[in-house]
Amino acid sequence: MTVSPTRIPEATVARLPVYLRALNSLLDSDVRSCSSEELATAAGVNSAKLRKDLSHLGSYGTRGVGYDVEYLRYQISREIGLTQDWPVVIVGIGNLGHALANYSGFSSRGFRTVALLDADDSRTGELVAGLKIRSFDELTAIVHEHGVAIGVIATPAAAAQAVADQMVSAGIRSILNFAPMVLSVPDGVDVRMVDLSSELQILAYHEQRKSTLQPDDGVVA
Amino acid sequence: MTVSPTRIPEATVARLPVYLRALNSLLDSDVRSCSSEELATAAGVNSAKLRKDLSHLGSYGTRGVGYDVEYLRYQISREIGLTQDWPVVIVGIGNLGHALANYSGFSSRGFRTVALLDADDSRTGELVAGLKIRSFDELTAIVHEHGVAIGVIATPAAAAQAVADQMVSAGIRSILNFAPMVLSVPDGVDVRMVDLSSELQILAYHEQRKSTLQPDDGVVA
Repeated sequence: MTVSPTRIPEATVARLPVYLRALNSLLDSDVRSCSSEELATAAGVNSAKLRKDLSHLGSYGTRGVGYDVEYLRYQISREIGLTQDWPVVIVGIGNLGHALANYSGFSSRGFRTVALLDADDSRTGELVAGLKIRSFDELTAIVHEHGVAIGVIATPAAAAQAVADQMVSAGIRSILNFAPMVLSVPDGVDVRMVDLSSELQILAYHEQRKSTLQPDDGVVA
Repeated sequence: MTVSPTRIPEATVARLPVYLRALNSLLDSDVRSCSSEELATAAGVNSAKLRKDLSHLGSYGTRGVGYDVEYLRYQISREIGLTQDWPVVIVGIGNLGHALANYSGFSSRGFRTVALLDADDSRTGELVAGLKIRSFDELTAIVHEHGVAIGVIATPAAAAQAVADQMVSAGIRSILNFAPMVLSVPDGVDVRMVDLSSELQILAYHEQRKSTLQPDDGVVA
């Protein structure tokens, strides 16, 4: 079996953070090695899929021993790039922007929020999560000063495209968009969209199925 | 080709909200019919995948005309269950809970927040998004009173499992979890997890590739 270190399927990339979280909780419980079944259970995926995913990283575990938890965590972190430092800027400091600025999960994974920006200049100077809110006009200067790689958009939908355009022209090539709005960006710029209501809609789909099917139909996901 | 109305692949279900959002913006721009290519572009997926997804709903469009935007929107809404009313309860009213309570994308899609609960009883009575924060102890009574189908967890990680257990014992069978923590729930209960830092990690993976590859390698996703 040939492992290509340069291409990992998108679906596998999307699961690597899930494995990383599972490995972190295993380490918290002082578990040093684990079988693919144990790791799959902790991550909430099936073990065949997990083994296939990890094979893309060149990780096969050891027969009868399983995976070395710490080493696998290092491999995944390196693959994702979490062994680097990622300066992040958050634009739009409403409730969601506040929540993101305070979110401990970012800083503990190599993401460093270097600036909070808001278009409402009356808020400039307000202290949130230890940072002073700055004017959106400073975006380009901040991107250059800190080498910002990732921009987070937490504005209302109506403002999101203009913010994205400014981010791109300031040199940002990766955008995480929380505004309920599909952004158009040039080639070479990655956008990931977190649509908070999509997840509720997916739940509603399953909930509807549960209400209309008999419990023993066995079709419920 | 046989269409089975009772099983739609999970990956297709996950894309239905994306199509719905694209259809809504087409309607906002007064577009009444569209080709699969147009809809695919608006949704940010490839058109072959879109046609396959819609075929699971029994929607094939009309040759030379494409899809009727309004009817397709209705079909998808009905399939997801958005033509019903979904009472939702949000537990944990910190910054994220505030943001969710104020999020317009929920109410416009059939999700009605009926209660905001927080374990900190000193906050009981505080007004957020037009609702008074209530004590977490009232969960079971509220679930029964309003027929709550979906519970949203916006607490810190350490509290999330206990909240999920209470939700399940109160009769909630669908949980949307924002706490960075894998929940264990009985069979028949669906949990969707929104891990805000996972999306950043996926971006970091691509950002790292962009930094290390030549721009003309053509390997960048």
